Amino acid sequence: MRVRLGKESIETRAVWFERGMLRMIDQRLIPQKFKVVDLVDHHEVAEAIRNMTVRGAPSIGAAAAYGMALAARNEADVRKAAEELKSTRPTAYDLFYAVDHMLGSLELGDDPVQAADAYADQVVERCRLIGKYGADLIGEETNIMTHCNAGALATVDIGTALAPIRAAWTAGRHIYVYVSETRPRLQGMKLTAWELYNEGIPHSIIVDGAAGHFLRKDVNMVIVGADRVAANGDFANKIGTFDKAVLCHELGVPFYVAAPISTFDFSIASGDNIVIEDRSEEEVTHVGRERLAPEGSAALNPSFDMTRAKYVTGFITEAGVLRPQEIGRLRKEQFEEEGDL
Amino acid sequence: MRVRLGKESIETRAVWFERGMLRMIDQRLIPQKFKVVDLVDHHEVAEAIRNMTVRGAPSIGAAAAYGMALAARNEADVRKAAEELKSTRPTAYDLFYAVDHMLGSLELGDDPVQAADAYADQVVERCRLIGKYGADLIGEETNIMTHCNAGALATVDIGTALAPIRAAWTAGRHIYVYVSETRPRLQGMKLTAWELYNEGIPHSIIVDGAAGHFLRKDVNMVIVGADRVAANGDFANKIGTFDKAVLCHELGVPFYVAAPISTFDFSIASGDNIVIEDRSEEEVTHVGRERLAPEGSAALNPSFDMTRAKYVTGFITEAGVLRPQEIGRLRKEQFEEEGDL
Repeated sequence: MRVRLGKESIETRAVWFERGMLRMIDQRLIPQKFKVVDLVDHHEVAEAIRNMTVRGAPSIGAAAAYGMALAARNEADVRKAAEELKSTRPTAYDLFYAVDHMLGSLELGDDPVQAADAYADQVVERCRLIGKYGADLIGEETNIMTHCNAGALATVDIGTALAPIRAAWTAGRHIYVYVSETRPRLQGMKLTAWELYNEGIPHSIIVDGAAGHFLRKDVNMVIVGADRVAANGDFANKIGTFDKAVLCHELGVPFYVAAPISTFDFSIASGDNIVIEDRSEEEVTHVGRERLAPEGSAALNPSFDMTRAKYVTGFITEAGVLRPQEIGRLRKEQFEEEGDL
Repeated sequence: MRVRLGKESIETRAVWFERGMLRMIDQRLIPQKFKVVDLVDHHEVAEAIRNMTVRGAPSIGAAAAYGMALAARNEADVRKAAEELKSTRPTAYDLFYAVDHMLGSLELGDDPVQAADAYADQVVERCRLIGKYGADLIGEETNIMTHCNAGALATVDIGTALAPIRAAWTAGRHIYVYVSETRPRLQGMKLTAWELYNEGIPHSIIVDGAAGHFLRKDVNMVIVGADRVAANGDFANKIGTFDKAVLCHELGVPFYVAAPISTFDFSIASGDNIVIEDRSEEEVTHVGRERLAPEGSAALNPSFDMTRAKYVTGFITEAGVLRPQEIGRLRKEQFEEEGDL
């Protein structure tokens, strides 16, 4: 991804291995501050996942893979490290997938850092393909709404929902992005808008409640990411996704989910089996350290919601764009790919 | 409304006339601080409406009525005062209604303050009736979602959407309120939650994007207010209302609009003719003085959205609960009432 630093701009990933350390952009400080943090063991990686220094399912997966590499290099118990890393966030399937993949590689005697690098490279290559296939869905003049941050920050580089947007922009199409701010943590306003600004892609931030207003007349398509997709095409994503899917269904706006095949969990029959993480009520009631809510009021803070497959126009994957009823195909491809690694 | 001040609690209105001044709760400071401001002329009243010291269509209407009373007492040009007061906010029909009503009363030689008091009393009496009719819709154990603040702060006292909730609570029913926080200005989190806390009514705050998640399984009904209702039952209300209406339609949850007949504008054929106010982008990009958005990102901030009549289960008015196709009845009653005043 491109990052403007004063008058310069650099190309960087969200997480990468360098000089024996896992390095990552501290996503909690974006857009106010660009800071890279260095982690030296898997405990630090687990904490960085838990406290959301790194977030977004594929970036979490890559961070966890590097966490396993650090555990192996530090001669820690890799089984215990795997448990510790897996316990950090309950919803992201990529996390479990990455850790189990690394356990397999380590058992085969692969070099830990090379194995984690290969995992991260593959995440980025999938995003590139998602961008290529997704861009074909974007017309010459298109207004696109997205939610949360399914961008380069979330996926090591390029992004999932932002991959088709980046690819269409690079191909010279006239696009405009409506960025849903994504309360409570404002990943849309803070992260997605920041990525679009850095790339020079025209966009405006809107509050989450304005989705329907703009979907009714201004927006041509919605592209969101996914944290976990069930075998039947139901999927979990950041809270507020379901609302947009229903609005698109009612208003006739195409609704796409951009997600790598690693996000599909065929062990889960439907969305009813996806565990939804509840986070602290302070994320809702406070901004920074300031409490905005009345002292006597509680808050509920489900971090994700679940959207039924029937609301999805298509899944944009590295294997192409699939209708919900076609995702059985992915299962076969996922198994083939696992055979490759 | 009841307000807890330390260990005491008081009964107060949101706007009232006392000692030659218009007094009002500064709603910009709630819930952190309870402060009453005193206004001595219609210019100050216009500014208080514009800067949202007072907000909510019926409270704005009452404030404007008192503003006209101050203009008359101060021997200002009441026609010019009427124009100044009407120019403050473009969407709220009550504002125009109240100012024109006061012009009529002043022409008839009524005492200005008595006329404004009568206007405010009538606003409150309508809310009481809305509460009475609306409470009949609320079962013994009911989870209710509301949006923004259609409470006592917005309507001089009692509220519109909160009137049935207050009445059901007073009648001993077991209710639980899901308070949608209502970005960008957070009137749900700051004002509605504060009113519910003061009354002791159980509630939780949720982010606007969590509406669908909770409507799918936890919520039995939605009650919102309205800033303006067109002759066909389409209505404008705080941004985010339309999203909830569509979700209710899709999920089979009853969706009620609580609004006094003064909110119905029969000169407007449909929602397409309702002017939607755009407010400053800083309301979206900043919290307090702190900018949360990237420096290079713009925001769009429509303050209201428009919901079609087909999504409305019923309008809860002082004349009873009406289906959208029954609102023609109101027209007749509105004319009769105008005859009374």
